[in-house]
Amino acid sequence: MTIVTSRLSVSVDGFAAGPNQSVEDPFGEGGMALSNWMLETDQPGRAADAAVLQEANDGVGSHIMGRKMFGGGDGPWDETWTGWWGEEPPYHAPVFVLTRHPRDPLPMKGGTTFNFVTDGIESALDQARKAAGDKKVAIAGGAGTVNQYLAAGLLDEFCLHVVPITLGVGERVFEGVGALTLEPVRVVASPTVTHLKYRIVR
Amino acid sequence: MTIVTSRLSVSVDGFAAGPNQSVEDPFGEGGMALSNWMLETDQPGRAADAAVLQEANDGVGSHIMGRKMFGGGDGPWDETWTGWWGEEPPYHAPVFVLTRHPRDPLPMKGGTTFNFVTDGIESALDQARKAAGDKKVAIAGGAGTVNQYLAAGLLDEFCLHVVPITLGVGERVFEGVGALTLEPVRVVASPTVTHLKYRIVR
Repeated sequence: MTIVTSRLSVSVDGFAAGPNQSVEDPFGEGGMALSNWMLETDQPGRAADAAVLQEANDGVGSHIMGRKMFGGGDGPWDETWTGWWGEEPPYHAPVFVLTRHPRDPLPMKGGTTFNFVTDGIESALDQARKAAGDKKVAIAGGAGTVNQYLAAGLLDEFCLHVVPITLGVGERVFEGVGALTLEPVRVVASPTVTHLKYRIVR
Repeated sequence: MTIVTSRLSVSVDGFAAGPNQSVEDPFGEGGMALSNWMLETDQPGRAADAAVLQEANDGVGSHIMGRKMFGGGDGPWDETWTGWWGEEPPYHAPVFVLTRHPRDPLPMKGGTTFNFVTDGIESALDQARKAAGDKKVAIAGGAGTVNQYLAAGLLDEFCLHVVPITLGVGERVFEGVGALTLEPVRVVASPTVTHLKYRIVR
């Protein structure tokens, strides 16, 4: 059965992005500090982080993301806008973008195709499962999208990359999700980030 | 120099107590599940949890707690009320209780004396430091008290015992604390709880 997985980099106080996110500042104020570890895995002493990232990326057959993560603002976007992931996005697989604005699929270099889904998170998951075959479906983000899948009971496993800062304000993981029971699968500690992987108990 | 330390059991979504805390239900709804691991350290497979707890308790010379943790409600309490820790509380050291209601020190069996401090968190810490000598001062809780010390920059180290549940509502650790930089000191993972110890960078 296809596993539905997700992972988010979060502060110790549970924020996945800082406040005042925008097209110019997608991580919000101070939020870039949550992602830096992923850009530094080739540095000395970061082998454990690199292995966690490699494991998370291996075997993913399709991705789901919110419109903001694709690169959209709040209004309908220009059909010429191809998101902020560049000409060759790092997904190399079908990506299903949750949006209210219909649009034709957008094939990019390197095997990524953005598909725009207007009929909700369950439809997006059905389409992503079919595209993934026996590989994993990854809920890429942002936190609002991950929280919707958590609240709907549609996630099988979830990894938190806990970065040793607090932000105090921003977009919270688990906001509106309610009570869940998890099962610790694995903890990897590095000097820069602590990786907590959980199975979600149904 | 005296180290000021604290630790809290928290849910994965950052709650240290459930909603609707009261004298009858001090952990709030669902909150008792955060403390169960501490009552089970003599069970098979819990040696790592037992060691973390032992280390946390070793070398503590005095404690600070909020009035609710002592066992007080919101009004002035009856002078005959000795808190809900029983005749022999588990502290075996001076405890400084933050309150607005003056009261004489209350010696209990086993070396615990409750001292009532009415002039704020810094005064309580000064008194606790003197009482601790070269041992540690432990900010015992609850979360509101710990958050006050975090916000004031008075904590040196902090351990989160992350229990694999989410609560969705309740009393949050780090509420109102703002932005901090931490340094991971040590991670201990057990099947029941993940212990994240941080040094707080000034």
